[in-house]
Amino acid sequence: MTWLPAWLRAYRPSWLAGDLTAGLIVTVMLIPQSLAYALLAGLPPEVGLYASILPIVAYALLGSSMTLAVGPVAVASLMTASALQPLAAAGSAEYVTLAVQLSLISGVMLLAFGALRLGFLAYFLSHPVIGGFITGSAVLIAVGQLKYIFGVKVAGSDVLETLTGLVKALPQTQPVTLTIGGASLLFLLLARRYLAQVLTRLGVPAKAADLMTKLAPMVAVIASTAVVAMFKLNETAGVSVVGNIPQGLPQLNLSLPGMSTLGQLWLPALLITLIGFVESVSVAQSLALKRQQRIQPNRELLGLGAANVASALSGGYPVTGGFARSVVNFAAGAHTPLAGVISAALMALVIATLTGLFYYLPHAVLAATIIVAVTSLIDLQTLKEAWHYDRADALSLVATALGVVALGVEVGILTGVVLSLGVLVWRSSHPHMAVVGRVPDTEHFRNVARHAVQTVPGLLALRVDESLFFANATVLEDRVEALLSQDATVRRVLLICSAVNQIDTTALGVLTQLERSLAARGIEFMLAEVKGPVMDRLRPTELGQRMQQRVFLSVHEAFEYASQTNSAALRPG
Amino acid sequence: MTWLPAWLRAYRPSWLAGDLTAGLIVTVMLIPQSLAYALLAGLPPEVGLYASILPIVAYALLGSSMTLAVGPVAVASLMTASALQPLAAAGSAEYVTLAVQLSLISGVMLLAFGALRLGFLAYFLSHPVIGGFITGSAVLIAVGQLKYIFGVKVAGSDVLETLTGLVKALPQTQPVTLTIGGASLLFLLLARRYLAQVLTRLGVPAKAADLMTKLAPMVAVIASTAVVAMFKLNETAGVSVVGNIPQGLPQLNLSLPGMSTLGQLWLPALLITLIGFVESVSVAQSLALKRQQRIQPNRELLGLGAANVASALSGGYPVTGGFARSVVNFAAGAHTPLAGVISAALMALVIATLTGLFYYLPHAVLAATIIVAVTSLIDLQTLKEAWHYDRADALSLVATALGVVALGVEVGILTGVVLSLGVLVWRSSHPHMAVVGRVPDTEHFRNVARHAVQTVPGLLALRVDESLFFANATVLEDRVEALLSQDATVRRVLLICSAVNQIDTTALGVLTQLERSLAARGIEFMLAEVKGPVMDRLRPTELGQRMQQRVFLSVHEAFEYASQTNSAALRPG
Repeated sequence: MTWLPAWLRAYRPSWLAGDLTAGLIVTVMLIPQSLAYALLAGLPPEVGLYASILPIVAYALLGSSMTLAVGPVAVASLMTASALQPLAAAGSAEYVTLAVQLSLISGVMLLAFGALRLGFLAYFLSHPVIGGFITGSAVLIAVGQLKYIFGVKVAGSDVLETLTGLVKALPQTQPVTLTIGGASLLFLLLARRYLAQVLTRLGVPAKAADLMTKLAPMVAVIASTAVVAMFKLNETAGVSVVGNIPQGLPQLNLSLPGMSTLGQLWLPALLITLIGFVESVSVAQSLALKRQQRIQPNRELLGLGAANVASALSGGYPVTGGFARSVVNFAAGAHTPLAGVISAALMALVIATLTGLFYYLPHAVLAATIIVAVTSLIDLQTLKEAWHYDRADALSLVATALGVVALGVEVGILTGVVLSLGVLVWRSSHPHMAVVGRVPDTEHFRNVARHAVQTVPGLLALRVDESLFFANATVLEDRVEALLSQDATVRRVLLICSAVNQIDTTALGVLTQLERSLAARGIEFMLAEVKGPVMDRLRPTELGQRMQQRVFLSVHEAFEYASQTNSAALRPG
Repeated sequence: MTWLPAWLRAYRPSWLAGDLTAGLIVTVMLIPQSLAYALLAGLPPEVGLYASILPIVAYALLGSSMTLAVGPVAVASLMTASALQPLAAAGSAEYVTLAVQLSLISGVMLLAFGALRLGFLAYFLSHPVIGGFITGSAVLIAVGQLKYIFGVKVAGSDVLETLTGLVKALPQTQPVTLTIGGASLLFLLLARRYLAQVLTRLGVPAKAADLMTKLAPMVAVIASTAVVAMFKLNETAGVSVVGNIPQGLPQLNLSLPGMSTLGQLWLPALLITLIGFVESVSVAQSLALKRQQRIQPNRELLGLGAANVASALSGGYPVTGGFARSVVNFAAGAHTPLAGVISAALMALVIATLTGLFYYLPHAVLAATIIVAVTSLIDLQTLKEAWHYDRADALSLVATALGVVALGVEVGILTGVVLSLGVLVWRSSHPHMAVVGRVPDTEHFRNVARHAVQTVPGLLALRVDESLFFANATVLEDRVEALLSQDATVRRVLLICSAVNQIDTTALGVLTQLERSLAARGIEFMLAEVKGPVMDRLRPTELGQRMQQRVFLSVHEAFEYASQTNSAALRPG
């Protein structure tokens, strides 16, 4: 029985009530969401349902979060659409096959990253880049859904084209569709804003009221489906509806991508993989912390990888941990992934018997569900905080969001990654440097510009507060030369390396040249407080050999040496 | 007269002899090189000559190096060919126009970078990337010239294609061409290796012998031209020759690129600009250091920018400071840029009156000149040093070189830049961390794993030796959690920030969440030795506000606080 997950082996009967309730509530959220996100991904509705059964079970067996709700999510659906639209017509059999294969590729990548412990790749996505990406994606998604609310046809490959197309198509607005879509949108927005308050005043406990709010989309789905079915609005008023969904459980089937498909899908799959992983782990972690549980990133890679492979096997598309459903799952009392397994079983039941009920479900209501869901992803708070804390990070966020909106999800996120790397290099290329002197009667050394300190005549002591590498080595050299040109009496240059964690080949070259150039002018180059690992690598180099006698353990020792070998005493700063 | 450059205002008659000699010797090198590099760039020979007149004068007026020899160079010529070959047929009027416009764009970029003080952009090119790029380019150039030595026609867009094409075309080898090309190659290689020694033994002073060695290409040019002319080998044996070069000074003319040309040329122009700038500055700097002179990078940007604009105005192509000619210029006694102006005047004289002399100059000899020149650029020494000092840098070098050879100059260098950034992030994402304790009876704190130190019960003191940012913040968090899971008695976590020069938004978010999660478990989070600039930004944030009372100036203070508020005393490590 050791192959069973730990939570199942340790299962306590007292957990069952919570898991059952959570499983049920999540299912009621999952039905409209899985249909809506399939629509967003350009896929037939059943693909969304398929992606909501086996992946949950697979994650339950391998993942490390007790409460993460895996399945179709908005951002991965958008990324799927963006990856596949250049390759096949949305909704076509080829398009569905590509979506299934995209899920397989992403699943295999996740498993490989887990096996090779490459989860750190996700660290290349900084918070501002992820925040900007999610916000930009939310705008892109919301704008893309407006056509369903108005009941018009709009083809546009970017936001501007979509919006202008929408404005041009407004005269063709279908009034009944707009009424249904608009009413749903209004209902969902009002429900999110006020329903919990109203219910609490009516005497419903606060927690239950909160959960009931999450069921509003299902209410909109049921009500609108009933109205459309009653008046056959799909025939009489041209309301676009979901239509036939094939009934029955998905067939298990493995569709392997060919080399050319691999070539086209690897980059989108990688981005879906990384974004999905980061988002999923951050949700899982924030929930786990509330119960003193731990998330193991490598286990998450395996769990999400298995979920995506399971999705591909059962005709689904890329899945990951969703924010809203996970939070509800947690709040509804889920203790273990059994809640997810119950959801999966209920979804299987629905797809095996009840798909006919969705025939009259209007696309406009699904679009309203999506729009309301994604507007909560627009994150201006992070932007505000970043703006105050770190202007460059805030600009990365804005650039990523604009990049996503204007240039699409892939170019957008790559822009963000390149920008955040650029910011990193730019920052490190402007290191803080200070000329230091000794605080009188101590072994402490401080910036001569800020403190009354003592200096040794002829000694220039410079502290550099950054690792030395290609982007800042020349800056250091320039600074030394500038200081020398200001003070012709300098006979010794001491570089204090207490904050230098690394010296790369380029910086080593610059320092070597600096030492030689100083030596040619009769100026002695000295080092102090070189960290152990840095010194170990420096020792066998040409510079290390030449400097042997001039590397001091502490600044104090270097000052002692300089003042002893110097006729003049310490002069007050 | 203040618009005159400083060197001219301060000119001393005693410098004239050196400047004259250097100008003359450099001209003798420059004539074959300018013809050869134009051939390499796919341009008519006169374009190389045009690029060797006005650019030198422009640099003399604005540059900061006293001895840099500006003009056509091998690598920029290769990059020009690589940028233009997809756009027009080599040697066509359109191709020449594009080369002129490329020079203009690069010149304007250099001037703009100088005006905006963006010279630091060049720092993104690390030594290993530049070394790998130059080495890869040298291989690419040498392989590309072999066809001229064999006198065969080979069309190939990459090294492999060129080499296989060459092997296939070997049966068409023209024996006379091969004889001339092979003999020149042998002569130039032997001259480089032995001529100086032989001359020294014959009683020539070492320095003069060295300089005479540099004139070997001109000897090859004169001898081969004479032989070909004598036997009309171009007609009787099919030896490909330079042919007619239009006589007369270049017309001044400004050809502005259109928007679509700008779109095609901006990236190659940017790369030529950056590579040219970096190479030029490094040559200029190493020469300046020998005479205690200083190079001002921003002045160099203006000087090189003016040189490229001047080149474009006079029908030339991208120029920069060349290594070999600059070294000769220096060694031949150049004191000021007047040496360059003399060169320019001599070149103008040549082009105005003597171009007919080059009619019979065989292409094979120019190719031999190029091959011998670029083989000296192949830099295995840097690779060897990098391999010993820093494996990751060595791999960047090799990857860049292979990228250039296999994928071309542009993709190659971009690969290198991305790789070096990746190495930087990867390194910083694995920061050195140490749990520390107090060295008995001192205020010093050391790694508990390496030293016999005292710890305070319940206090976990962790020092992180790196700035905290998106790529390593989660690593730190994971480390803290791992340490906590090993020791359930920990009630306080102290993070020692003495090596933390920056905390970005992502790391701030991670620390904020860590503090909250620790607080939820009743564990106190403390900071020590936070640097001034880091603390200034941290103070107004949520974390800063929550931590107010728990930020300690020194580790010592933090330990004192922990042991005083703790009933137990220091326990020996």
